[in-house]
Amino acid sequence: MINVGMIGFGVVGSGTAKILLGNKNILRERLGFDINLKRIAVRDIKSDRGVKVPDGVLTTDVNLIFDDPDIHIVVELIGGIRPAKDFILKAIQHGKHIVTANKALLATEGAEIFNSALRAGIEVGFEASVAGAIPIIKVIKESLIANRIKAIYGIINGTSNFILTKMTEQNVEFSDALKEAQSLGYAEADPTLDIEGIDTAHKLTILSNLAYGIPFSFNDIYIEGISNISTQDIEFALELGYKVKLLAIAKETDGEVELRVHPTMIPKDHLIAKVDGPFNAIYVDGDATGSTLYYGRGAGSTPTGSAVVSDIADIARNLQKNAVGRVPIIPRISRNTRIKKIKDIVSRYYLRFSALDKPGVLSNISGVLGSHNISIKSVIQKGHRIGEAVPLVLLSHDAKELDMRKAIGEIDRLPVVMGKTVFIRVEGREES
Amino acid sequence: MINVGMIGFGVVGSGTAKILLGNKNILRERLGFDINLKRIAVRDIKSDRGVKVPDGVLTTDVNLIFDDPDIHIVVELIGGIRPAKDFILKAIQHGKHIVTANKALLATEGAEIFNSALRAGIEVGFEASVAGAIPIIKVIKESLIANRIKAIYGIINGTSNFILTKMTEQNVEFSDALKEAQSLGYAEADPTLDIEGIDTAHKLTILSNLAYGIPFSFNDIYIEGISNISTQDIEFALELGYKVKLLAIAKETDGEVELRVHPTMIPKDHLIAKVDGPFNAIYVDGDATGSTLYYGRGAGSTPTGSAVVSDIADIARNLQKNAVGRVPIIPRISRNTRIKKIKDIVSRYYLRFSALDKPGVLSNISGVLGSHNISIKSVIQKGHRIGEAVPLVLLSHDAKELDMRKAIGEIDRLPVVMGKTVFIRVEGREES
Repeated sequence: MINVGMIGFGVVGSGTAKILLGNKNILRERLGFDINLKRIAVRDIKSDRGVKVPDGVLTTDVNLIFDDPDIHIVVELIGGIRPAKDFILKAIQHGKHIVTANKALLATEGAEIFNSALRAGIEVGFEASVAGAIPIIKVIKESLIANRIKAIYGIINGTSNFILTKMTEQNVEFSDALKEAQSLGYAEADPTLDIEGIDTAHKLTILSNLAYGIPFSFNDIYIEGISNISTQDIEFALELGYKVKLLAIAKETDGEVELRVHPTMIPKDHLIAKVDGPFNAIYVDGDATGSTLYYGRGAGSTPTGSAVVSDIADIARNLQKNAVGRVPIIPRISRNTRIKKIKDIVSRYYLRFSALDKPGVLSNISGVLGSHNISIKSVIQKGHRIGEAVPLVLLSHDAKELDMRKAIGEIDRLPVVMGKTVFIRVEGREES
Repeated sequence: MINVGMIGFGVVGSGTAKILLGNKNILRERLGFDINLKRIAVRDIKSDRGVKVPDGVLTTDVNLIFDDPDIHIVVELIGGIRPAKDFILKAIQHGKHIVTANKALLATEGAEIFNSALRAGIEVGFEASVAGAIPIIKVIKESLIANRIKAIYGIINGTSNFILTKMTEQNVEFSDALKEAQSLGYAEADPTLDIEGIDTAHKLTILSNLAYGIPFSFNDIYIEGISNISTQDIEFALELGYKVKLLAIAKETDGEVELRVHPTMIPKDHLIAKVDGPFNAIYVDGDATGSTLYYGRGAGSTPTGSAVVSDIADIARNLQKNAVGRVPIIPRISRNTRIKKIKDIVSRYYLRFSALDKPGVLSNISGVLGSHNISIKSVIQKGHRIGEAVPLVLLSHDAKELDMRKAIGEIDRLPVVMGKTVFIRVEGREES
């Protein structure tokens, strides 16, 4: 029997408890031994979380977990940096193995936690930290072990995906879609982490670490959120055959890795463009596998709890077989993989200019683009009101980001251009 | 260092060799030790398989693998029942761990092989036996361990999916689509195993064993292939909002498990309906996770090789840590899960009658259906040629298969009905 102590009893904690208690028999059949939820430490032991735990399991004293020699695995589900980090480090000092869903903590303080665990011969499971029910951590660490990972594209923030889906399907503006997400519990009162791409970048930090051995690099990720996306751009995108999604992108090009989070136009018929609402999906292109995709609920009580329990089971199996450290927490890669600067990436771009409707304007704009080595793939010009500003939409061929930014800077100073140019990067070429 | 001996050097064998040799450094970084492809036994050592193996690795004498005390893992990639089975049993007797991609063998002789391995304390990896690059075996055994599996829907035969996609997108009949699949290498000269659903049922046998602990039950699976599907039915399906796919279905209902393989209509906007061409996908609904989906190439040299190498790596990790048997080959479930007979299933149905175009026909037919407790959801009547046979298409609500078969038997004897009624089962209700 393996004993588990859990810290935190919120949404994910109650899902985890529900599974450990409700599916106890299934787990025993598959594992060959019992997982026992021995203790749950939580500030308020009175609230009803919709799951009945046996008497004596709940406590307000977290030290009952650290000090219990029978507890093998500590599950941290309180989130945030402090005191989560202190609890995890303390559990490691007490020889407890760790399971956590805390992406913000791992993305920013993961190096210290993992090093401390490594020195102490402790396992750290973090399947639940990225994409909820989707087993992407294990897939990258184990199932795709044979592959050089060429690219990862992830829809890994359900809040943003819900909002963009709403804007696309019902033509409502960002602020209204956000309000609905908040009223449905898909977005928090302060939605910044989700809508500004920070949560997505936390998860990308973890994935890129596994795929490329890049040390935790949250600060090196280029991040743009979705709060500036308008339904006008979503409509033009649809007309051009694309959907707008907030993507986490990791891509190996020329021996460097691109790490970026931004709204991205993807071909409508690409499978990942069809991932809607609060669902998550991660597309992984391996040199051996080619295209693969993993889809499921990215958040929620039992979906995330399922990932937590899979980590508990994995560590428990190692404990039963005396095989701790069987799979390294993160790959030990010695080579120094450089992260490409955003100005150096090459992408296609969607551009929306607000230009006066008069002869020669397109030639002015395309002239500036041409002088920066940017060529145009297609043009949409909407409306016709001589002397007034109308949207002019272009899709470029591959261009360097730095060239694009210089060109847009020049274009925005042209007298015929009336507002700031909007640009959205475009990904995905042929097969899905 | 872990030494591997491989038997067979065809499509999957050459992909496996390519990965073990070409991605040797990546594997070492991730594993912390080397995997060495020591020996490949193959009948013909002269042919060029597009991968350069070191001198002395190739041999025509398979006993050089069994008799080599340094070889830890034997990879069987020759397919078919004999001599594959003898080789695997012999390798087990010699204390070698097994990796195989042989779904036909496991589905029909798996019980003997797994029991023999279990008695000898031998690992058997079979990730490559179902859905190529998609890590569905490990996902069900490990990542979804917390879940009672409510349903599995799999598109797990690339040949059939290629043919149905071709028929749907280009409106070509089955026989022409099959010819194209053969000319592209997606179908074999004798395509029976693929198009008649047998290969799909082999894989379903393996999946249901893992998900429900059902002993190998290939003979209990209800199987219908795609050779009777016409473009006419595909078009009517599209008109009704559905695509036709060959699905493997495992579903727990009322404490029994349904296991069936047949052409199935699925809502067009369901993610699995969008899996086209030679790709595979498996949808798994767990009680904790809800909907999840796994997508990738179901066949091919390096995609399947990637799965083979992931098994080699898994077993190698167990060997390094002395943790053989860490994850049971199949779950040891004692309870007796009954397999539901096809006549007892409940489904919705698409029905196409060939009926005389005259007043009262619909009332005749719906009268028979009603007398068998079958109610109608929608009707399409195409063409109008009084006195001639025209197609009459119905979608039913939920009905019992036995009732449906009785009703169709009666309807086919009505004087106004001119040919045999076509029926296709319909799955998938709400969310994707």
